[in-house]
Amino acid sequence: MNKAPMGWNSYDYYDTNVNEAQVKANADYMAKHLLPYGWEYIVVDIEWYAWHTGSQRDKYQYIPFGKVEMDDYGRLFPCPEKFPSSANGAGFRPLADYVHAKGLKFGIHIMRGIPREAAHRHLPIMPEAGTEEVLYNACDVADPSSICKWNPDMYGVRAGVPGAQEYYDSVIRLYAEWGVDFIKCDDICNTNMYVDNPYSAAHEIEMLHRAIEKCGRDIVLSLSPGPALIEKAWHYEKNANMWRITDDFWDEWELLRQMFWRCELWQNHVTPGNYPDCDMLPIGTLGQGFGNGPWQTRFTRAEQRTMMTLWCIFGSPLMIGAELTLLDDWTLSLLQNKEVLKLLENDYIGRQVERDDAHAIWSCANDKTGERFVALFNLSDQTEELQVDLAQVEQFLSDPKAVDTATELWSGEKATVESNVLSVSVESHDAKLFALKNK
Amino acid sequence: MNKAPMGWNSYDYYDTNVNEAQVKANADYMAKHLLPYGWEYIVVDIEWYAWHTGSQRDKYQYIPFGKVEMDDYGRLFPCPEKFPSSANGAGFRPLADYVHAKGLKFGIHIMRGIPREAAHRHLPIMPEAGTEEVLYNACDVADPSSICKWNPDMYGVRAGVPGAQEYYDSVIRLYAEWGVDFIKCDDICNTNMYVDNPYSAAHEIEMLHRAIEKCGRDIVLSLSPGPALIEKAWHYEKNANMWRITDDFWDEWELLRQMFWRCELWQNHVTPGNYPDCDMLPIGTLGQGFGNGPWQTRFTRAEQRTMMTLWCIFGSPLMIGAELTLLDDWTLSLLQNKEVLKLLENDYIGRQVERDDAHAIWSCANDKTGERFVALFNLSDQTEELQVDLAQVEQFLSDPKAVDTATELWSGEKATVESNVLSVSVESHDAKLFALKNK
Amino acid sequence: MNKAPMGWNSYDYYDTNVNEAQVKANADYMAKHLLPYGWEYIVVDIEWYAWHTGSQRDKYQYIPFGKVEMDDYGRLFPCPEKFPSSANGAGFRPLADYVHAKGLKFGIHIMRGIPREAAHRHLPIMPEAGTEEVLYNACDVADPSSICKWNPDMYGVRAGVPGAQEYYDSVIRLYAEWGVDFIKCDDICNTNMYVDNPYSAAHEIEMLHRAIEKCGRDIVLSLSPGPALIEKAWHYEKNANMWRITDDFWDEWELLRQMFWRCELWQNHVTPGNYPDCDMLPIGTLGQGFGNGPWQTRFTRAEQRTMMTLWCIFGSPLMIGAELTLLDDWTLSLLQNKEVLKLLENDYIGRQVERDDAHAIWSCANDKTGERFVALFNLSDQTEELQVDLAQVEQFLSDPKAVDTATELWSGEKATVESNVLSVSVESHDAKLFALKNK
Amino acid sequence: MNKAPMGWNSYDYYDTNVNEAQVKANADYMAKHLLPYGWEYIVVDIEWYAWHTGSQRDKYQYIPFGKVEMDDYGRLFPCPEKFPSSANGAGFRPLADYVHAKGLKFGIHIMRGIPREAAHRHLPIMPEAGTEEVLYNACDVADPSSICKWNPDMYGVRAGVPGAQEYYDSVIRLYAEWGVDFIKCDDICNTNMYVDNPYSAAHEIEMLHRAIEKCGRDIVLSLSPGPALIEKAWHYEKNANMWRITDDFWDEWELLRQMFWRCELWQNHVTPGNYPDCDMLPIGTLGQGFGNGPWQTRFTRAEQRTMMTLWCIFGSPLMIGAELTLLDDWTLSLLQNKEVLKLLENDYIGRQVERDDAHAIWSCANDKTGERFVALFNLSDQTEELQVDLAQVEQFLSDPKAVDTATELWSGEKATVESNVLSVSVESHDAKLFALKNK
Repeated sequence: MNKAPMGWNSYDYYDTNVNEAQVKANADYMAKHLLPYGWEYIVVDIEWYAWHTGSQRDKYQYIPFGKVEMDDYGRLFPCPEKFPSSANGAGFRPLADYVHAKGLKFGIHIMRGIPREAAHRHLPIMPEAGTEEVLYNACDVADPSSICKWNPDMYGVRAGVPGAQEYYDSVIRLYAEWGVDFIKCDDICNTNMYVDNPYSAAHEIEMLHRAIEKCGRDIVLSLSPGPALIEKAWHYEKNANMWRITDDFWDEWELLRQMFWRCELWQNHVTPGNYPDCDMLPIGTLGQGFGNGPWQTRFTRAEQRTMMTLWCIFGSPLMIGAELTLLDDWTLSLLQNKEVLKLLENDYIGRQVERDDAHAIWSCANDKTGERFVALFNLSDQTEELQVDLAQVEQFLSDPKAVDTATELWSGEKATVESNVLSVSVESHDAKLFALKNK
Repeated sequence: MNKAPMGWNSYDYYDTNVNEAQVKANADYMAKHLLPYGWEYIVVDIEWYAWHTGSQRDKYQYIPFGKVEMDDYGRLFPCPEKFPSSANGAGFRPLADYVHAKGLKFGIHIMRGIPREAAHRHLPIMPEAGTEEVLYNACDVADPSSICKWNPDMYGVRAGVPGAQEYYDSVIRLYAEWGVDFIKCDDICNTNMYVDNPYSAAHEIEMLHRAIEKCGRDIVLSLSPGPALIEKAWHYEKNANMWRITDDFWDEWELLRQMFWRCELWQNHVTPGNYPDCDMLPIGTLGQGFGNGPWQTRFTRAEQRTMMTLWCIFGSPLMIGAELTLLDDWTLSLLQNKEVLKLLENDYIGRQVERDDAHAIWSCANDKTGERFVALFNLSDQTEELQVDLAQVEQFLSDPKAVDTATELWSGEKATVESNVLSVSVESHDAKLFALKNK
Repeated sequence: MNKAPMGWNSYDYYDTNVNEAQVKANADYMAKHLLPYGWEYIVVDIEWYAWHTGSQRDKYQYIPFGKVEMDDYGRLFPCPEKFPSSANGAGFRPLADYVHAKGLKFGIHIMRGIPREAAHRHLPIMPEAGTEEVLYNACDVADPSSICKWNPDMYGVRAGVPGAQEYYDSVIRLYAEWGVDFIKCDDICNTNMYVDNPYSAAHEIEMLHRAIEKCGRDIVLSLSPGPALIEKAWHYEKNANMWRITDDFWDEWELLRQMFWRCELWQNHVTPGNYPDCDMLPIGTLGQGFGNGPWQTRFTRAEQRTMMTLWCIFGSPLMIGAELTLLDDWTLSLLQNKEVLKLLENDYIGRQVERDDAHAIWSCANDKTGERFVALFNLSDQTEELQVDLAQVEQFLSDPKAVDTATELWSGEKATVESNVLSVSVESHDAKLFALKNK
Repeated sequence: MNKAPMGWNSYDYYDTNVNEAQVKANADYMAKHLLPYGWEYIVVDIEWYAWHTGSQRDKYQYIPFGKVEMDDYGRLFPCPEKFPSSANGAGFRPLADYVHAKGLKFGIHIMRGIPREAAHRHLPIMPEAGTEEVLYNACDVADPSSICKWNPDMYGVRAGVPGAQEYYDSVIRLYAEWGVDFIKCDDICNTNMYVDNPYSAAHEIEMLHRAIEKCGRDIVLSLSPGPALIEKAWHYEKNANMWRITDDFWDEWELLRQMFWRCELWQNHVTPGNYPDCDMLPIGTLGQGFGNGPWQTRFTRAEQRTMMTLWCIFGSPLMIGAELTLLDDWTLSLLQNKEVLKLLENDYIGRQVERDDAHAIWSCANDKTGERFVALFNLSDQTEELQVDLAQVEQFLSDPKAVDTATELWSGEKATVESNVLSVSVESHDAKLFALKNK
């Protein structure tokens, strides 16, 4: 991997209720309007295996003790009511084929662990490929004291017991057979139920990683929810490709404002194959499945520019939360700015230069091409004149004095650099991102 | 209630495996040797409803996803393999009758909540007495995110949902019908899974209390495990009769030593009907069910005297952990000292007078009878000369100068009081308990 | 002591700036209007030893490195600019004499520890009474790492070093000579600087206690600030007479509302000589010294009734925060209700009966006289009909069915008791306190 | 800076008592034996400004309220008893000159803040260079509630008050005039007194940084004590050159073992000018000033190799704790291994490859030269066969299959690489560091 994954995720719009037709419609749209700009992942988020999702939305987001689609080995399958092509054991294979045929990649969400139902029903664990004898049972590997705080579907898998790796192998083998390219595993990055051990599922991260290595297919492993634990950075990097550095991100300025210190914290950890994850982009039309009808993003245009600029200069994965077919032109243009999206590539290294309560400045450089960028963010509630002494970013500049043009990448505006200082007016909550050119 | 309950509990010797014959043998023994001294409760501890208990003791104390005996309303019944008389829906009624016929009282252990099995099987909750229509289902009241850290049997019951109180009512009604006199409810006093809210089951305590009030039978409510939360003292007192002030207590000096500050902490909370609980007395023969064969208590005789003296002067419930039929004469004598056991009565008020790392002194007085006592504990590792200025206990003494005899209640030894100071030699870890007499 | 102290404290009105004339004026007022109702303590609060107090109130409440009045042994004396009669070594003796002549008692505030100035100047510690040789130096007993978070005057005194007890003895001996009857020691009850050890001054509490025992004068020892630590209740009781169960209490409903759970927590700890302390009564005119001019209490009359009722039924010390000479008739009447103030006496035992977010009920009984009381508090934001089943307070009632009159002690209103239930309307934030009478 | 500083520090041998002759002797030794290998800093550690240091070592490491050498502006000077050449206002200039004449660099330790003495004596703050009017006073900038937990000399400097930056400027200007090249500022990296805000001195770090920028001399800024806070990494990097990632490190295996996860945590933060600091090397003869006479390092030779290998491959500063003039040949050889020391240079990037309780593996690469290294650490208590699949370090290897020689840098031993796997026996607590060569 040479840049963070870019794609679409069903959650922000559909909650637990996305269906096959909706996924296909979003894939169609992406193939047509976004694929040329690098967007390629179509990710089906949580509860695709559950029946009746959304039917008790006033009481539960996740129906406890509800019906889930499962094979005889406790492996979850798509609910055929929502995904008709998955019937008769086909699973997500037909839908993945559809997505692949568009030139896109296919991803799914899973919860860590094994279905509670499988353990209570004492289901066998599927034998290793090439063997037939059942050696293990769900009730041997399920840990009844390892649960998710907010979702009732699974039990965690025990550490170091026979059958545990075999269970994860059996699941990932199935998903690889379906053609899954991306797995977002939830309740694993920060197991927040366990206040005194939020990394209680470290062994399950390792088992997933091993299962993916064994399965013979390139699968991106994305871990949720955040905030990821900075003191476990090395472990995430060894075992996964993405990990959420924030709790669920939504269209609220305060959450966006806080992302600046999260990006400060994780900036040294963006490397090829490893992408700290700022979470989905809550733009466009959102929330159809959440009970009170859909809404338009509460972010202003300025805030959306700030978000896109920060995610790109930092190097976060980009996953669109909007229903794609409802995108307006302005929002679409935000996703089609090649000059900005280019910064996601690993050769572009972004670093925070300054930050206080009122503003932040980031720089970015590509040592191979010699390209240089600087982003100025106004975090305050009024328009501000922001300045950056380019000597502060001199480590990225071969001859800082020689910068003579600065071109803003969202607006095309040219800014003057005098005495090596770039000084521009930035509106409240807005960002400006400049490409710097030497004479 | 005018004193803390006294009895026997199956756990310390039998772990999860006690059976009917064993319970009866202990009841027989108690009726014959201990009842005259005030001992009256026979308590069947954890897992009486579970099959195959102990069969996987190397791996689990509590078998996850194992078979439990349950009626069609999700109410647990004794496993008939262990309690033959309970078969055919008789429950604990025959055993309770047996115990009652001996002049004793019958108690059982329960886990808070509703069986996980009942929720996963969507069992109905029994209708209120006098009604027939099923209104609620286990899956509506079971909270899938409320579990016990160490026992896999139950889900907690939700707060404030229809059917929750009805479930507890149905359970307690059944146990009242059986003739249960004492319920030790576990995973409720300190829900230690929930580090940031160890009192997460407050509403279940209240539901149990209400169910007991409604059931028409006097049932002592005992809450476990400890340590109870001192800041919830009033709530315990309103809703329960006993609550554990310590985590599991075993035959280790360090645990006994720590009980001194626990008793200091809770001393103001011993009142009629309310008894902070120091946990079972791990004396005699212990641990037959714990996997490595039974052992003799690791407490020295001095330590056992210290324990009995502290428990009595503080006013803790007394629950014998030993297998009664194996008691030796010395241990039995410890349980038959009427002069000491009398201090349990609520008219005898005990208070700590001094405490440091090396010793503790408690006083006790009965204002109605004028009786006065003082206990001296040597917590150090060598014999010490301990002194107490009786002026320090003068609030209990009408004319402290007039004390002229002090009689030790374990040994009968007389001690001299000079200048109002009682000074005696106490061996390491031992205690002396004096009745003080005025001229 | 058979009841909690009642008096006046200079802080709420004067901050750090009270002077001799003002203290006398308040003493005159108390002697004339309040002494007959039991009010007797006149307490000079913080910084009486400091010069120029209040002169930098925009920057500091307590001027760092400012001038303090001190003798050659590092013992603080009143600033003669504020207390002219203290000049020439007289100290507070003349003022105490004045107060005593009025039939009142005299109290002062101190900070725990030894003046920083004394340590930096290497002052000697005064020899024991009857000796002349200087044995210790301030710099030996001052602990440079023990400070107060909010006041810069002192260093804590080390535990277990020669000279430490002698220092405290020398200070208390001086104050006893002055005729001090009451010492409010600050930064000692909860040393909140030391987050992981808020009881870091336990040894200083003990030293103060011993110094008072030695000094030959009855001096009430009051510890601040709160919240006191419930797990140290026994230690407070052994060593002090009062301890603050709350951080600074002011005229804000939220603080008053929270006092209900604080009183719940500490209710078992009100005994003769031991009074958990709800802090001063911020009524009448307040705050003249705090920088923005004085204000009238922000408590409504209902809230003031609630406060007085709770403090009295709980048994807290009562210290008036108002400038007495400015009291209006209504406020004065609040302080002259003998029927209510009587409940402070230790023979009247108050206990919480019910409490939730919207209301609280307390009962009170005097077993010697047979008197019974019940208080109903409306904590909600609208008028409520509150009920109490008097069976709930039956432990206090010899024959609960026979209650036939209930007289409200603030208004004289009679309430009907039907079927043993008292049911009354109480306005938002108000309280009603009933004396119950049997036929 | 293109590599972490290397030098000698007086603390581990001399505690608070090093004197001028001893510093010179160590400088002489370094110039002769170590300078050719890159060692160049001579650092005088804590309490050079204090009189009588060590005279009360049984009671205090740091004498409270003791005499310190200070000018009229509250700036600390060397105690002339220990540093005779500093007399008459010369300060450390003569000693710095001596060190510089040897081709070495000179460093000193300071405590953050301003002397308590200066505040209590109300000393003026020196006017800015070129001005004469005294504008500020020590008592205005000293914060009486900001102290060090373990050293009594200073008060912290307030944030955002006039005079605060001027104070730090005046101090750093003086030290720059003396010719100081390196400042180790203590009680600033982790202000562990303030449990809930261990980064309470962030503003003092910034003031020091600004003062150094202003002073016109290149001075390395080193922050102590650790553990540094990983969530403040960016702030350290902006303002300082080194920061301690551990509490005081001594010659105990457990501390060395823990350094592996500390290095894991900070590995991404070693960049030019920024060096997370593993603390001094406690080798050779240590502890002469600590009260019980000097001792030989308790580290085995294996452990010393492990330490040197880890510090170098990670890129930590290297500060020798031993008295240099007492170094034995073996220890000296540890410090003269150019092949190993070369890895400190910033072009050599080290990363952890594996770590568990029993072993750790690190790789290192220099992309400019193509050099490759791998280190294998045996953390267990017995000899182990350690293996590393060189594919795991392939990101550093242009053609991993082609590695054919592996030369151990401490012993010269050649190891065979078969099927791209390096497999060697490593003794308990020992390390092997291989240079890898392609055909």
